[in-house]
Amino acid sequence: MTPFPTAQSLIDHWDRGNVLAATCPSRAILQHLTSKWGTLVMVTLATGPHRFAQLRRRITGVSERMLAQTLQQLEADGFVLRVARDVVPPHVSYSLTPLGAEAAVHVMALTGWIEGNLPKILATTAPPVIAEPV
Amino acid sequence: MTPFPTAQSLIDHWDRGNVLAATCPSRAILQHLTSKWGTLVMVTLATGPHRFAQLRRRITGVSERMLAQTLQQLEADGFVLRVARDVVPPHVSYSLTPLGAEAAVHVMALTGWIEGNLPKILATTAPPVIAEPV
Repeated sequence: MTPFPTAQSLIDHWDRGNVLAATCPSRAILQHLTSKWGTLVMVTLATGPHRFAQLRRRITGVSERMLAQTLQQLEADGFVLRVARDVVPPHVSYSLTPLGAEAAVHVMALTGWIEGNLPKILATTAPPVIAEPV
Repeated sequence: MTPFPTAQSLIDHWDRGNVLAATCPSRAILQHLTSKWGTLVMVTLATGPHRFAQLRRRITGVSERMLAQTLQQLEADGFVLRVARDVVPPHVSYSLTPLGAEAAVHVMALTGWIEGNLPKILATTAPPVIAEPV
């Protein structure tokens, strides 16, 4: 038995990321994929390439600024490919990279589970606990 | 033919929840499960019940306030069970409900994929695009 089991398991999984560690880059990646709009962009792009305006129409409620920011972040992470065709008017389309398609499978599994279990989830949902005024 | 028929069918089933609709309650549930700390709380509780201080130690960087808020939200959604044993000193422990355990499977699949593919993801990660000063 090792006196530092946690350290041991850290060492055992050194090649993997660890989202529980604040300094591990995997946590930032997780946050981009699961951000408010990141999740919805991934699910929508999993249905095929979209132009910016198409994405905005499908993802109800997203602002132009937040959509642009989200796409830029996912592009920087290597999940989204931005292709600008040099025509007039300019034609820019967004699609998933092969890596993004792999990630999207898991994002879709989660959103799919929520959508499919919504009645069950809402049935068990209690109103949030409001702190008593002091 | 769309490259990802599963995603298309997610969007097509309007009798189910629809995370793409701003007014669908599934979107709020998704956001609780995928919030910055929500994800990490779900993954940690999937390893077993934890007391508050234990959670804080494992989820590096979370503040007391944010952890309390996150647990309260997940409890209200029916994913987390808070059990307070009436002893001195008080003993409060948090665990996943059966519904929470189902959700955690998908959250873990996503975090596991990120952790396992981190070198590949980081290799394709470009520095974020910085807007030119005007």
